[in-house]
Amino acid sequence: MAIIKTEIRTGAYFDSVILMLLQRSLAELPGVEDAGVVMGTPANLDLLEQTGLLVDEIKGVKADDLVLVVKAKDAQTAQGALAQVDELVAARRSREGAEADFLPKSLESAGKILPGANWVLISVPGRYAAGVSREALRLGKHVFLYSDNVTVDEELDLKKAGADNGLLVMGPDCGTAIINGIGLGFANQIRRGMIGMVAASGTGLQQVSVRIHQLGGGLTHALGTGGRDLSSRVGGITARMALDLLNRDPETRVIALVSKPPDKEAADDILNFARGLSKPVVVNFIGYQTTLQKIDNLQFASTFDETAEAAVALAVSTESQEINNQIQLDGFAPGQRYLRGLYSGGTLAYEALLVLEHYLPDLYSNVPINKKMKLENSLVSQENCIVDLGEDEFTVGRLHPMMDHELRLMRLEAEAEDPEVALILLDVVLGHGSHPDPAAELAPAVAAAIEKAHKANRRLDIVVTLSGTDLDPQDMAAQQDALEKAGALVFQSSDRAVRYAGRLMRQLNEISESQLPPSFKGVDLASLQGDFSAINVGLESFTESLKTQGAAVIQVDWKPAAGGNADLAALLEKMKA
Amino acid sequence: MAIIKTEIRTGAYFDSVILMLLQRSLAELPGVEDAGVVMGTPANLDLLEQTGLLVDEIKGVKADDLVLVVKAKDAQTAQGALAQVDELVAARRSREGAEADFLPKSLESAGKILPGANWVLISVPGRYAAGVSREALRLGKHVFLYSDNVTVDEELDLKKAGADNGLLVMGPDCGTAIINGIGLGFANQIRRGMIGMVAASGTGLQQVSVRIHQLGGGLTHALGTGGRDLSSRVGGITARMALDLLNRDPETRVIALVSKPPDKEAADDILNFARGLSKPVVVNFIGYQTTLQKIDNLQFASTFDETAEAAVALAVSTESQEINNQIQLDGFAPGQRYLRGLYSGGTLAYEALLVLEHYLPDLYSNVPINKKMKLENSLVSQENCIVDLGEDEFTVGRLHPMMDHELRLMRLEAEAEDPEVALILLDVVLGHGSHPDPAAELAPAVAAAIEKAHKANRRLDIVVTLSGTDLDPQDMAAQQDALEKAGALVFQSSDRAVRYAGRLMRQLNEISESQLPPSFKGVDLASLQGDFSAINVGLESFTESLKTQGAAVIQVDWKPAAGGNADLAALLEKMKA
Repeated sequence: MAIIKTEIRTGAYFDSVILMLLQRSLAELPGVEDAGVVMGTPANLDLLEQTGLLVDEIKGVKADDLVLVVKAKDAQTAQGALAQVDELVAARRSREGAEADFLPKSLESAGKILPGANWVLISVPGRYAAGVSREALRLGKHVFLYSDNVTVDEELDLKKAGADNGLLVMGPDCGTAIINGIGLGFANQIRRGMIGMVAASGTGLQQVSVRIHQLGGGLTHALGTGGRDLSSRVGGITARMALDLLNRDPETRVIALVSKPPDKEAADDILNFARGLSKPVVVNFIGYQTTLQKIDNLQFASTFDETAEAAVALAVSTESQEINNQIQLDGFAPGQRYLRGLYSGGTLAYEALLVLEHYLPDLYSNVPINKKMKLENSLVSQENCIVDLGEDEFTVGRLHPMMDHELRLMRLEAEAEDPEVALILLDVVLGHGSHPDPAAELAPAVAAAIEKAHKANRRLDIVVTLSGTDLDPQDMAAQQDALEKAGALVFQSSDRAVRYAGRLMRQLNEISESQLPPSFKGVDLASLQGDFSAINVGLESFTESLKTQGAAVIQVDWKPAAGGNADLAALLEKMKA
Repeated sequence: MAIIKTEIRTGAYFDSVILMLLQRSLAELPGVEDAGVVMGTPANLDLLEQTGLLVDEIKGVKADDLVLVVKAKDAQTAQGALAQVDELVAARRSREGAEADFLPKSLESAGKILPGANWVLISVPGRYAAGVSREALRLGKHVFLYSDNVTVDEELDLKKAGADNGLLVMGPDCGTAIINGIGLGFANQIRRGMIGMVAASGTGLQQVSVRIHQLGGGLTHALGTGGRDLSSRVGGITARMALDLLNRDPETRVIALVSKPPDKEAADDILNFARGLSKPVVVNFIGYQTTLQKIDNLQFASTFDETAEAAVALAVSTESQEINNQIQLDGFAPGQRYLRGLYSGGTLAYEALLVLEHYLPDLYSNVPINKKMKLENSLVSQENCIVDLGEDEFTVGRLHPMMDHELRLMRLEAEAEDPEVALILLDVVLGHGSHPDPAAELAPAVAAAIEKAHKANRRLDIVVTLSGTDLDPQDMAAQQDALEKAGALVFQSSDRAVRYAGRLMRQLNEISESQLPPSFKGVDLASLQGDFSAINVGLESFTESLKTQGAAVIQVDWKPAAGGNADLAALLEKMKA
C-alpha cells in the first residue's frame, strides 16, 4: 500500500516555474507514484484532495506555506524523495548558475548595465510586487506589473506615483502589452498598423489584437492597464495616461478601448475623457449598456470581434479624420444659449431627444424621455426643448403639421424673437401625403427668422433634417435649394443634423468633455519609440520571449529581501528609505 | 377699433381640410383682419389666445365644439362673415359636388364598386374611427388607420378581431406604409428592393426608408403598426403579424423593425418572436439598451441612419442567408444537457458569459455577471458553468493556465466523465509568453475526453476558441490542425465559438424562441401582391395621392352617422348589429 509523506516550509520563496519543475522531478523519482509541490492556498489544497494527496498533517497550512507531498510505494521511498528536494532545487539552480553569475542582483545594477531600458517587467509573487514596482518608479522606469494578488491600496499608491512622474503603471495583473511591436507577457505577434489599444483586460487585448491582424489591420501599441484600473477606486489613472499618449502618437489613427465592465462613475469619467480626444475611439466595456452606439468620436462595440471590425474599418476610413473639429461660433450674442426643436415627425423628435441627451443637460419636451422634463405648456418653450407638433394634443380637428404649417410658422416666429435662442431644429418630411411644396411656406419664414435675429445683432442657426428621396413628388433638390437659400443648414440624415446641433450647443455653452485638469504628467512619446529595452524581474520565460523578439533585455537575479521574511524585509525597506 | 364675433356649433362635423380652407376663406373676406375655425381643444384655445382671438364667450367650449371666430373692422363685417360660413362650405361642397355625386356613401357599396380592394384607409376623426374600422374588418379588409385619438381599448378590440381573421390593423395613429410600392398616408417614393420594414413609428419608418433609398437599397413592403402596438397592453399584435408576413414573403431578405421605446415585457416578447424568424432583423427600439449588438438573427441599431445602413449591408451580404440554420443534434444521450467552459483567459470567459446569457438561463461561474450565480466551489462545476482558471484563487504559487495546463487537463477529464455534460468550451491562447505547444498537451486530452464519452454512448462536443495569429511562435495552423484531428471544433473568433455553443445548447434543451403558439391567423401573402387597390374614408388627399401613384382607389363620401350626434349614432350602430 502506498504511503504519503509531507513537509511544510514556512516563509520559503521559490518561483512558480521552480515549483512546477520540482513537482515533476519528484513525481519522476523511482518508486514515487505522485507528488504535490504547491503553496498552501485553499484552491491548491482542494486540488491535493482531488488527487488523494490531502492528508491531515497539511490541512492547517497557510497560503504562504510551501507544501510538499509525496506518495510512494513505501515510507522510505517517500521520505527519500522529500530529502532530495534541496538537492533537486540546487541542481536546477546550478544549471542556471553559469548564467546567473553574471546577472545583476538588483534593479539598480540592472539599470546600470542596460541604461536605455525604460521598462521594467515584474512577475514576482504578489506580496513582493509592490516593493519592486516602487523601486522601478524610483529609477524613472515604466512598470509592466504582471503579478496578481496585489492590493488596491498598493495599486493606487503606485499609480499616483506614476502619474506624478509621467510613468505608466500597467497592472497589477496586467498580462499583456505590445510596445512598438514587442510583446510583453502574453502577447501575440501582430502586424504593425494604425490602431492603438488601451485595455483593462488581458485576453480582451489579445483577442481584439488577434482579430485585427486576421482582418488585415495592425497595431501601433497596445497598452494594458490591469483589470482594476477602471474601478471607482483607481479611477482609470493608467487608462487616461495611455489614451492621452496614443492620442499624441502620430502613428496611431484609431484607438480601441477595452475593459471588463467598469464601475459606472469610472466609466462615465473615462468616456468623457475619451470624448475629448482627437481620434476615433472604439469602446468595448464588455456588458456596458448605452442608448447610442456612436457619440462624437466614440463608437461602442459589444464583443471582441465587433471591436476589431470597427477599429479596422475606422483606420482606413477618411471620415474618421473629421472628428471633433471645432465648430465656428462667431456671431452669437451673450445670452444666446438654448436650442429649440420644432418637429412635425414624432419619432424624429424622439430620436433628437435621445441623441441630444448625450450633449445637453435638461432637455424639455412635450414627449420627454424622462417624465420630469415635460413642458408645462406645450405651446411655450422652456430652456432647451424639443416639441412634437404632431402629437394628438395638436391634431384634433386640425391637419397634421406635415400638411398644414400654420402652427409651426407661428412657433418659428416666436422662437426667433427669443434672445436666448441660438439654434432651431426643424424637420421637413417630403413624400406622398405631405404638403406639396413645404419650402414655399417654410423657406420665407426661415429667412425672416434669421433676418429678425440679425437685426437684433444675434446669430440664429436653423438646422433642417430634410427627409425625402429624389423620387418624391416634391422635387427634393429644389426643396433643399430653397431652404438653403433662405439660410438654413440642411442635412438629409437626421442623425447628422442633430449631432451637429448638439456639438454646436455644447461648444457654445462650453460644456467641456472633461471638466477636470489632467491629473497626471503626460508620458514622454519617446518611451514608445526606438528599440524596446527592458529589465525583467521574475519569470525568466519573459526574458527569453523578449530576446526571441529581438528586444534588449536584462534579467535580474531577484530573491525576496531577507529570504522572504516579511518582518525583516520591512525593516530593510525602512532603513533604505 | 377691431371687433371680434364668435359662433359655437355643437356636434357639427367638418373634416380638417374643410376647417383649414374655411378659416382661410373667412380671413380673406374684405374688412376681416383675422379668423379662427377650430375644434375647441385646450391647445387650439391657447393658439387663439396667442393671436388675440380668445374672447370670453368661447372660453368654456368643449373639445368637440366647433369654434368660429372673426376679427373685423366693425361688428357688421364680423357678423356678416360668420353668416357666410354655411355658404362658403356649400360652395366648397358644390365644387366637389359633381364628383361627389358618384361617390359611394358607405364602405360596403365602395367594396361592391371596387371588389378587388382589400385595404381600407381610414382618417376620419378619432371618435368615429373605431366604428369605421370595425366595418372594414367585417368586410374582410385590412385596415390602415391614420386617425389618432382612438382609445387603447378600441385598438385592442380591433386588433384582436384582425388577428382572428388574418387581417392587419395598422394603427391607430399609423401615418405611413408602403405596400408593393404604393405609399399610404405619408410615404416617400422608395426604390423597390429586398428590405421589408415593420414600424411602430411613422417618421421612423419614413426616415429609415429614405436612408435605405439614399444608400442604394430598396424596399419590398413597409408596414406601420401604430405607435402603441408595442405597449404591454396591445402586446405587438400587429408587429407579430407583420413580421410573420414578411418572413414568409419570398422577396424580403432582411427585415428592419423600428419602434419608439416599447414596454420591457412587450419588447422581450417581440424580440423572442423575431428570433424565431428565418431572416435577419435589424432592430431599432429607439432608446433600448442591450449588452449585445447581435443576437442570432437580430442586430441592434440605435439611430435611423444606423438602421438603414445595417439593413442595406445585410441585404447584399451572403452571410445573412446562413442565419438560424438547424444544428445537427444526433448522438447526444438523454440527460446530456449542460455546457462547461474551462477558460485560461479571464475576459474571454467573461465575454462567453455575456453572450451565453442570451442563450441559456442560469449560468454559474467563479466570475459571474450576477453574483447570485457564483459557483459554490470553483473546483466543482454546477449545471451550465464557465470557469476562469486564470483567477487569482488558482494562481498563487502556480503558473498561469496559459503556460501550465495541469489544472485544465484534470478538469477536462472530470467534465468528460459527467453524463450531464454535452459541450465543453475551451480557449487556447497562443503568442509570446504562452505555452510553446499547447496542442501537444491539450489535443491528446481532447481526444481522450471524446473517446471516453463515446464509450459511454454519449456525444461530447469540444469547442475551442483558438486565439492567435499566423506570425505567433507556435505555428497556429499546426495547432489548429492538431486540435481538429483530436476531434475539437475550432473557431478563430471567440464570438462565433460561443454563439455556436449557445445555439447548440439552446436547441438541445429545446429552449424555443417563442414558447407561445401563434396568437393570430397569418395574413394571406396575396394581400401584398398584385396591383394595390383600396378604399379611402376620410382625407381626400390620400385618395389623390394613391391615384397619382397609379393605384386603384375609391373614395367614400363619408359623413358621421346621425350627423355626428354620438347618442343617435350609437343607437344606429346597435340596430345594425
